Amino acid sequence: MSVDETIRDMALAAKQAAKVVSVLSTDKKNQALERVAQKLLEETDTIKGENERDLAHARETGLSDAMVDRLTVTDGVIASMANSLRDVIALPDPVGGVTGMWLRPNGLQVGRVRIPLGVIGMIYEARPNATIDAAGLCLKAGNAVILRGGSEALHSNAILARIIQQALGETGIPEGAAQVVPVTDRAAVKALLLQEDCMDLIIPRGGEGLIRFVVENSKIPVLKHYKGVCHVYVDQTTDLKMAEEISYNAKVQRPGVCNAMETLLVHEASAEAFLPKMASRFKAAGVELRGCPRTCELVPEAKQATEADWPEEYLDLILAVKVVSSMEEAVEHIANYGSAHTEAIVTSDYNQARRFLKEVDASVVLVNASTRFNDGGELGLGAEIGISTSKLHAYGPMALEELTTTKFIVFGDGQIRT
Amino acid sequence: MSVDETIRDMALAAKQAAKVVSVLSTDKKNQALERVAQKLLEETDTIKGENERDLAHARETGLSDAMVDRLTVTDGVIASMANSLRDVIALPDPVGGVTGMWLRPNGLQVGRVRIPLGVIGMIYEARPNATIDAAGLCLKAGNAVILRGGSEALHSNAILARIIQQALGETGIPEGAAQVVPVTDRAAVKALLLQEDCMDLIIPRGGEGLIRFVVENSKIPVLKHYKGVCHVYVDQTTDLKMAEEISYNAKVQRPGVCNAMETLLVHEASAEAFLPKMASRFKAAGVELRGCPRTCELVPEAKQATEADWPEEYLDLILAVKVVSSMEEAVEHIANYGSAHTEAIVTSDYNQARRFLKEVDASVVLVNASTRFNDGGELGLGAEIGISTSKLHAYGPMALEELTTTKFIVFGDGQIRT
Repeated sequence: MSVDETIRDMALAAKQAAKVVSVLSTDKKNQALERVAQKLLEETDTIKGENERDLAHARETGLSDAMVDRLTVTDGVIASMANSLRDVIALPDPVGGVTGMWLRPNGLQVGRVRIPLGVIGMIYEARPNATIDAAGLCLKAGNAVILRGGSEALHSNAILARIIQQALGETGIPEGAAQVVPVTDRAAVKALLLQEDCMDLIIPRGGEGLIRFVVENSKIPVLKHYKGVCHVYVDQTTDLKMAEEISYNAKVQRPGVCNAMETLLVHEASAEAFLPKMASRFKAAGVELRGCPRTCELVPEAKQATEADWPEEYLDLILAVKVVSSMEEAVEHIANYGSAHTEAIVTSDYNQARRFLKEVDASVVLVNASTRFNDGGELGLGAEIGISTSKLHAYGPMALEELTTTKFIVFGDGQIRT
Repeated sequence: MSVDETIRDMALAAKQAAKVVSVLSTDKKNQALERVAQKLLEETDTIKGENERDLAHARETGLSDAMVDRLTVTDGVIASMANSLRDVIALPDPVGGVTGMWLRPNGLQVGRVRIPLGVIGMIYEARPNATIDAAGLCLKAGNAVILRGGSEALHSNAILARIIQQALGETGIPEGAAQVVPVTDRAAVKALLLQEDCMDLIIPRGGEGLIRFVVENSKIPVLKHYKGVCHVYVDQTTDLKMAEEISYNAKVQRPGVCNAMETLLVHEASAEAFLPKMASRFKAAGVELRGCPRTCELVPEAKQATEADWPEEYLDLILAVKVVSSMEEAVEHIANYGSAHTEAIVTSDYNQARRFLKEVDASVVLVNASTRFNDGGELGLGAEIGISTSKLHAYGPMALEELTTTKFIVFGDGQIRT
């Protein structure tokens, strides 16, 4: 069977299964997820064995240590997959929730009720846990899902797919409800992106190249972010110790992720008291600084930043630093170079906080907190299937609610329109 | 200047203006809309004069009477444009509304606040009122808008554009906030659909051909419906008089619109008592019936329906009729041939009503009411800029809320992630 035929069959099976999954009871969905969790724990050795095949191939092909690390499935990783499924089980089922209901003058009762989106395609790289997390969230929200992981995780994803499908089968749910694409080349992705009559949403997660490829080739709506060029702005009137802790956390705690800070903006009135001390702390953590002229005056060891540094997502222990003469300049810089992902201000000034929250256009805007909190779990959504920096449908972290839509329901007593 | 350059300049101006409009006070926005309403009434004669040029051209080129009718701007039409602006003024401003706020265990206060989408492109045909309605709704929701009407309404739209822009100027709002494309060929539409760095949403309204052209060529998210193949299902246990009134209203009250009924489904147990009587009423209204074999037995004057009738959107006094043996068959028929637009059941059975509401996938599902109620105004949204049958972002009539999105705002006291 050709790749195109394989994908077409999967899409049709998903569309069929979506009808069944959309009206399943919460109990039934939770039962299936619990069965997946149990099987993951029961089959730990098999999973690790298959993962070892991927790891061997990764070492042969010289994958970076960071990538191998993300790919590695240990007992702990499997336990955390099972735990995150149980977290999803514990979350309220969004399907069927009425988000509003009102009475019209003619007696019609009109409401909006949450329904699943239908069939979701998830395209991602490396980490095998994504397979379990995405399947769990999509199913809980009543959707069917087609998962297409990276070639690096081929065997790991195949065994996880088998486990999910067996669990579905044992619970009496069609296996089309959660499928893993068994082909990992771009042709399979391209074929998937053309199934617009069967699929309702595509979520790509990975490098900017993969995401651009998906956006360019998709006939199906895509929710995504290209990158996270996140800023922390240290205001004029501010608690400098708090600014230091937040900046340090935003850059250093996990530099390789999308909500890490990439550029630090500092009000000129705070620069002298703040930057040298901050810089020595960054230096101790191995962070390379690339500064504007004023920064380089205050921090002699900083390299000179070029225009290319401002829109850059380093995903590494590198930080661009700019001294600004006002919050307006900071907001303007963010508008020009930011990616509408995560933006934070550190300030003690009530009016500045209000203005920053209002004027900065980003999916998450924070006052006096680290950018690292742009995460579904951290913000209290219970989980996350990705972060959107597009404004349609979802802006920010996407969880169960974002995997649903609402339809209007109308209760009448014979009303007609005059 | 080439078409591409003209459109590019408009898109850039809109993006600039959107920043200003997004943070305008409600009063300021209402002031501008009121100024447009006043100017419409003041310049009634000029508007009618320009409209007359379009009408003369329409008569020369032999536009259909229905189209000429939609194009004609009378004193009454102008008054209703002004009134609908005042209706929008009276609606609550969605921008800044907090849709939820909660406290995290670490003390972070997290909320979601409504913000404008940014720049909206509206592509539509014929009716000049759409120019005013769309501009009013987009501006009230804090968005900039680029309007591209049909060539039939070239002069009418140009004068309306001048009025809107003068009103904006007089209120101190950048004219880029609401622009009308002065070129009406498809090249202008195509150029508009490529401005993805400046525009956030495209809403096409018109014939299926125009909408497919937009979807095929857009790099920008599109909200639309292709067509409305709406059904009324008359159940086994039902008030036949109510079924008759609803069916008649859904078909006859305004047959040329997307929420009119196109196919009537009747449970076999109700068919004999219902169909002949219903048919004679339809006959009196000039409705042509195209029936399944059982329908043709009961209604000898009905034509034989073919497979091509079931997915057809007649937009005319033609109705397809099918007798079904169960609600399941009706739901299945709707799933196969419907357009996810508007579906209604007429029933006295509680369980059937519950099941129909749950199992039918359409943007509006009604019990014992006419399909004609799928309309933003009728459902209580206050206005409408279009109806979406895509599930992402909006499903059903779109009003002010659907012209916004939400961003997360986070209030902290120095929280960092551990």
